[in-house]
Amino acid sequence: MNVLFLGTGAGVPSKQRNVSAMALELLEERGTVWLFDCGEGTQHQILHTSLKPRKIEKIFITHMHGDHIFGLPGLLGSRSFQGAEDPLTIYGPKGITQFVKAALAHSQTHLRYPIEVIEGEGGIVFEDEQFIVEAILLEHGLPSYGYRVIEKDKPGTLMADKLMAAGIKPGPAYQKLKEGGSLETEEGKLILGSDFLGPPKKGKIISICGDTRSCPQLAKLAEDADLLIHEATFGEEDEKLAYEYYHSTTIQAAELAKQCRVKQLVLTHISARYQGEQVGTLLEEAVKIFSDTIIAEDLLRLEVK
Amino acid sequence: MNVLFLGTGAGVPSKQRNVSAMALELLEERGTVWLFDCGEGTQHQILHTSLKPRKIEKIFITHMHGDHIFGLPGLLGSRSFQGAEDPLTIYGPKGITQFVKAALAHSQTHLRYPIEVIEGEGGIVFEDEQFIVEAILLEHGLPSYGYRVIEKDKPGTLMADKLMAAGIKPGPAYQKLKEGGSLETEEGKLILGSDFLGPPKKGKIISICGDTRSCPQLAKLAEDADLLIHEATFGEEDEKLAYEYYHSTTIQAAELAKQCRVKQLVLTHISARYQGEQVGTLLEEAVKIFSDTIIAEDLLRLEVK
Repeated sequence: MNVLFLGTGAGVPSKQRNVSAMALELLEERGTVWLFDCGEGTQHQILHTSLKPRKIEKIFITHMHGDHIFGLPGLLGSRSFQGAEDPLTIYGPKGITQFVKAALAHSQTHLRYPIEVIEGEGGIVFEDEQFIVEAILLEHGLPSYGYRVIEKDKPGTLMADKLMAAGIKPGPAYQKLKEGGSLETEEGKLILGSDFLGPPKKGKIISICGDTRSCPQLAKLAEDADLLIHEATFGEEDEKLAYEYYHSTTIQAAELAKQCRVKQLVLTHISARYQGEQVGTLLEEAVKIFSDTIIAEDLLRLEVK
Repeated sequence: MNVLFLGTGAGVPSKQRNVSAMALELLEERGTVWLFDCGEGTQHQILHTSLKPRKIEKIFITHMHGDHIFGLPGLLGSRSFQGAEDPLTIYGPKGITQFVKAALAHSQTHLRYPIEVIEGEGGIVFEDEQFIVEAILLEHGLPSYGYRVIEKDKPGTLMADKLMAAGIKPGPAYQKLKEGGSLETEEGKLILGSDFLGPPKKGKIISICGDTRSCPQLAKLAEDADLLIHEATFGEEDEKLAYEYYHSTTIQAAELAKQCRVKQLVLTHISARYQGEQVGTLLEEAVKIFSDTIIAEDLLRLEVK
């Protein structure tokens, strides 16, 4: 499981940072990629990565500001042009359906794959046997959601040595035991799968906030996350500006990470006012409070540990 | 007067060519820039040029396909974010008003400058004392217009030597004569400005076609143009494909240029199927028919001679 930052800037593109987009690569887990936000030029950024648009299974939109959605129509069209046939689902706030529909209709873009757009107002937006995704309403002047992606725990590894010692030879029975089933040996002994499984593998939690002012709901989003991706549009000294513009500072993000026992913090949505050494200063501010912090860059790829 | 190519590819962006956009720099003529089409990432391309978004006075849209319009909402928003206050007018086919309105409304993009969107079905879309712009309906499956930009002729240079010889000294009188007026000397002699002006300076004609199949209307667009910017999505051997997909070939563009006594031809909207040497082949095909041909590249800047 990797995250790949496609755009890490705020508001408008700059030469250094494109507007918001991030890919969660779930290639090993489910052979697909999930996208979070899709600012203008996201498809251009993808050209510089190994990401295949046809692999994009879901797109989660945090909020309706242009720097988070204006790349959506183009990406949808190009995904079709490149021959994708697998369905794609978009999750987002009220208005996202109409935005997508209008852009596709006006441009006469005919998609060759099925598309579903799901508008929500928070809560669990997706669940299957592997993942739960919960949308949590944050504070940004207009509805802006953070997404808490929870990978479900996976059963532990089957202890083959122990099974052999108990006289169970490799074969179809192993799969049954691995799935928690049981079997009876020829000698009439009951073998329970659970006795031969290692400890379950804890699923990862990735918390992704869109644009937001520091607010209490963030704790629910970030709690115990393996990775918290948090906006930091402003540095420590601009806390007042951050509040006024419904954004967060480096310090606020780092304090949240500490308070919520997060494993790693990545700061993104960095204002173009910070260049070169100033970005280093932003990092220093955060690291004082939460040491496992990095500042995202466009095309940074990070394994979720 | 310069043209600056911001996107010269077809359909989808590639690493080499962005989707369609072209700037006509009229900085000397009127201190502004006109844009023709605005595919996704146009504002990103502008970051690599000296073009100032606040200088953009007019945007002409050839047709509603996504690769020609999806950069519009972002550019409009960024122009505002950067503090532009001068009005901006967009000209385009039916649907452009609703597309722009919907994208701005859904994203809650509030522009700080006045914007006007003018939908037309061909004919003269703009005229002032300097320029006439005529939209001509071409053939592309959906309404697609070419724009013929006609700079009006400018009066010739005032022949100062000849005036001095006639006893007229430099001063306010010169301006009057330059504008075609007359004056009477102290000796009662009538001096006509027209007798002291060099030949009028012929205005330039720039013909810009959007996507189109080869069609008779193109002759009206291209006639006697100083610069014809023509799509060439396909090479000579793919004339059938070009017809089927409502596009043109190198040969068709070059034949038009020759037939219409154009001074210079620039081919653009080059399909990503042509790379490296193959682009050279496209050029060779066209040059056989019309020698003053070049193939546009992203960020190519060209003086209109």
